[in-house]
Amino acid sequence: MARIVMKFGGTSMAGTERIRNVAARVKHEVDAGNEVAVVVSAMAGETDRLINFCREAAPLHDPKEYDVVVAAGEQITSGLLAITLQAMGVKARSWLGWQLPIQTSDAHASARIEDIDTKGLIAAMSAGEVAVIPGFQGVTEDNRITTLGRGGSDTSAVAVAAAVKADRCDIYTDVDGVYTTDPRIVPRARKLAKVTYEEMLELASVGAKVLQTRSVGLAMKENVRVQVLSSFDAPTDNPITGTLIVGDDDIGEDEMERQLITGIAHDKNEAKVTLTSVPDRPGAVANIFGPLADANINVDMIIQNIAHDSGSTDVTFTVPGAELARAIDTLEKGKDVIGFSNLMHDTKVAKISVVGVGMRSHAGVAATMFKALAQRGINVQAISTSEIKVSVLIDEDETELAVRVLHTAYGLDAEDAA
Amino acid sequence: MARIVMKFGGTSMAGTERIRNVAARVKHEVDAGNEVAVVVSAMAGETDRLINFCREAAPLHDPKEYDVVVAAGEQITSGLLAITLQAMGVKARSWLGWQLPIQTSDAHASARIEDIDTKGLIAAMSAGEVAVIPGFQGVTEDNRITTLGRGGSDTSAVAVAAAVKADRCDIYTDVDGVYTTDPRIVPRARKLAKVTYEEMLELASVGAKVLQTRSVGLAMKENVRVQVLSSFDAPTDNPITGTLIVGDDDIGEDEMERQLITGIAHDKNEAKVTLTSVPDRPGAVANIFGPLADANINVDMIIQNIAHDSGSTDVTFTVPGAELARAIDTLEKGKDVIGFSNLMHDTKVAKISVVGVGMRSHAGVAATMFKALAQRGINVQAISTSEIKVSVLIDEDETELAVRVLHTAYGLDAEDAA
Repeated sequence: MARIVMKFGGTSMAGTERIRNVAARVKHEVDAGNEVAVVVSAMAGETDRLINFCREAAPLHDPKEYDVVVAAGEQITSGLLAITLQAMGVKARSWLGWQLPIQTSDAHASARIEDIDTKGLIAAMSAGEVAVIPGFQGVTEDNRITTLGRGGSDTSAVAVAAAVKADRCDIYTDVDGVYTTDPRIVPRARKLAKVTYEEMLELASVGAKVLQTRSVGLAMKENVRVQVLSSFDAPTDNPITGTLIVGDDDIGEDEMERQLITGIAHDKNEAKVTLTSVPDRPGAVANIFGPLADANINVDMIIQNIAHDSGSTDVTFTVPGAELARAIDTLEKGKDVIGFSNLMHDTKVAKISVVGVGMRSHAGVAATMFKALAQRGINVQAISTSEIKVSVLIDEDETELAVRVLHTAYGLDAEDAA
Repeated sequence: MARIVMKFGGTSMAGTERIRNVAARVKHEVDAGNEVAVVVSAMAGETDRLINFCREAAPLHDPKEYDVVVAAGEQITSGLLAITLQAMGVKARSWLGWQLPIQTSDAHASARIEDIDTKGLIAAMSAGEVAVIPGFQGVTEDNRITTLGRGGSDTSAVAVAAAVKADRCDIYTDVDGVYTTDPRIVPRARKLAKVTYEEMLELASVGAKVLQTRSVGLAMKENVRVQVLSSFDAPTDNPITGTLIVGDDDIGEDEMERQLITGIAHDKNEAKVTLTSVPDRPGAVANIFGPLADANINVDMIIQNIAHDSGSTDVTFTVPGAELARAIDTLEKGKDVIGFSNLMHDTKVAKISVVGVGMRSHAGVAATMFKALAQRGINVQAISTSEIKVSVLIDEDETELAVRVLHTAYGLDAEDAA
């Protein structure tokens, strides 16, 4: 017997027929003798419908009232799943954010979970009743409804799993696990049995959009075993059919050694900005990145070339494509202080990253990457590295080619796949 | 300055454009210096959509979870109206049923309001903040969401008005007041300036569907001045443009005397049931109506003819058309105990009622009715009376004719109308 938190997204909850499939899957776990809590999203499209109402009502709306409106989507699916489970003979009840309660900060529309009261929840689960919990919502100390921001249901699920000390948090999605890379680009990509939290964080933040980054960070902090698996595969007696996301300790020594690189991610949503002839003096860089940070613009890769003879240098960096306009605006306003000549930008770039905890103990990972890319004539525009990741910025048109080349170069291709 | 509760139905709240009209009307009252609470319904069609989800999930669903699902409709419109008011520069916030709280019984899906905590509400209203309250919902002592049953938003509005001791509860509908009869049948029908609670109860319960009967009963008990008015007329500086529903004391002596009859209602949703050759002995009638009461079937008019020579009698009564099938089923099951020969039923009937507090002190009201109907050859199939009402059952096809004839007979026709 285990205690399990199951999470289903909007596609799985879209309509009563699909909710019946979800309920059957929950029943399968209950019948196997497990204690189960289920965290649900709103029906696909519903949150957008509600957000749109708020935008129509007023472009700049009170986030407190926005939260009242959009939290209704998950409230509806929670009640419907409880009804459906009961109709299948499974004891169930819904627990809304304010009923548990799931206490959050008062940062409406992007609140952080602070505490989950598990008294009623654990009592009910121990008595064999499935707890159905709306994802994405909570309540402030002064009893106002909050939401956690888009994709917050993953975070709700991990937080509930941590609070009830669940043996596992199963996140059901439209893919059956985490792959070495995007299978649409590389048909010989392999599904990973296990990845570490850190690898998942790097893979998630560079474009492998299986799990919300925030939920992975929380899982790492709270040491919650997360499984990503498909909601479309039929339930089996094997509880582990997807990819487990675990701590380093949970990965066997052998597994750690076996693969240097866990996966290859790509991200086409970056934009490159270059400032030319920036004075090469102390504080010059701070003049660039201080105002961008103040404007809440996320700067990723940064390259400062060596100084020209003239005593000036070029600075290149990337920002999310969606924030490019604001970034340009911010920099142009600071042009006199920064003292650059020209601002150039390019959105036709892609970031390719190789990720793996194995590279901590191995040199030469980056060298392999540059060599493989150079052999196919792919030009590297920028480089950044972390302890378990090497990223390069290339021309967007070469994304697929680069991913395939690297997948082969690191020996990730499956042997018997199509 | 007055304290006002305003209530808007689903048609008024259907979409952000209409919610803007509602907000403008609320702003008009705020600008006039009034303290305002607004009770809102879900968008037209939304409650049906949510109920349908529950039915699809399971035909016999847990009313506790049904309440979680359907209460979401009013939650959404509450948040949207608060957002819209704020955008117009009017201070506003939503107060959900569990936030005030509106304490109800635990009869889920048809709960009764037991208590409304007004502390936060009155503090906010006194500070010039409009309180937006979802109608139709409340919360039990153990923190589960309840709903009040269809049309419950009228009841919510009256209950809130009673709790905050409002000077007036304005119920906005798609008609501009209560008429002497249905203006679609009698173009010369007149809008009433005032009706008493009792008259409104009789008019509502016999088919003048302006207000939910339960809300009128509550208004009478709590002595809440209710105004029925149109949400489509432009706001004016005259606060009273519709029909006031008030106590007897609030109707001037002159007004009381002026009109014997206040209005004429009709109801085509009745069904007539006749049991023939029921034994004429003590307890026979109890054998009929006891089981119907146990089955929660509302019996209205009852006629027992005098006994035949054979020692048996025919019993005729009416039930709501929607409950006819269940009534027949209940009676057939009890056939041996009741001992009737045949069960006949007829749904092609209509109930016509003349209502007025004036008839308390005047004889001859019923006689006028029978004479007027007889002159036009309309056959009366059954009669029932109360202190302020006389109802007759007639052939459904003669409904419009009967209403017109009686409207004229009691001198209700407007003099200068079309």
